[in-house]
Amino acid sequence: MNIRAVTQDDFEHIWPIFRDIAAAGETYAYPRDINHEQARQLWLELPRKTFVAEEGGRILGTYYIKTNQAGPGSHVCNCGYMVSAAARGRGVARAMCEHSQQVARELGYQAMQFNFVASSNEGAVRLWARLGFATVGRLPRAFNHPRLGYVDALVMYKWLAD
Amino acid sequence: MNIRAVTQDDFEHIWPIFRDIAAAGETYAYPRDINHEQARQLWLELPRKTFVAEEGGRILGTYYIKTNQAGPGSHVCNCGYMVSAAARGRGVARAMCEHSQQVARELGYQAMQFNFVASSNEGAVRLWARLGFATVGRLPRAFNHPRLGYVDALVMYKWLAD
Repeated sequence: MNIRAVTQDDFEHIWPIFRDIAAAGETYAYPRDINHEQARQLWLELPRKTFVAEEGGRILGTYYIKTNQAGPGSHVCNCGYMVSAAARGRGVARAMCEHSQQVARELGYQAMQFNFVASSNEGAVRLWARLGFATVGRLPRAFNHPRLGYVDALVMYKWLAD
Repeated sequence: MNIRAVTQDDFEHIWPIFRDIAAAGETYAYPRDINHEQARQLWLELPRKTFVAEEGGRILGTYYIKTNQAGPGSHVCNCGYMVSAAARGRGVARAMCEHSQQVARELGYQAMQFNFVASSNEGAVRLWARLGFATVGRLPRAFNHPRLGYVDALVMYKWLAD
């Protein structure tokens, strides 16, 4: 698996992954009916950098990194990760999260924050915890899950400085 | 004190308040050197609604309300409040926060979240607590205070439904 910076051409391969994850409504705070251009803006234009994980020319996953809060909060970054349905369970999210922490350090960030992890997304919560992220907040009923209804969302956080 | 919807003309009176609060760097996650147009975009264009508190034709304070997270998080709003230096200690923030909760209910929101309250901003933390907001998260050293250095930022949250 190789992780590299995104190119504009990659978005045609990212879009089906993004669309399916947004449509499911179980993990990301994006409109479930988000369109191609809105998604491209959010994933490629708005962040500071975006990467893809690929193998044999196929995109397995993608992530972005951006500054989480401006001014007095600008030493903390935020990342989002998506893995294609076909590539789940192969350590793609773990590899991207480890890669993103290295990128964050290179960009001079001191910490990384996930703002809105659905507590029902147990696999993600467990993985981030294993990778050193602490649950520093619990937002009561802040995530409206399509099947489970209102569930708590978690704020997870890791100080990166050595 | 009267609280009413903002007009474009109001921004000339909001800008000195905004500029001073951003420049101080003690409470808001905005660039300390934010310019007029960036501030106008953030305060008037990006939010769902913006209000001013006025008395005798003078603007004492201002607040915005917006959706905090899209899609599965869109039932939770976010607000930001600013009070002019001359009008502090007169209950302007309290009046605006109470007004904003009513507006939030009218707009159909179920909850209100403050994402990034500097823990050193003790007056604000105390006021929000009195108005029913719980501290649901503590982000370690996430706020870089110009005098105190890294301090924790708090996430505060209130479920609004009756």
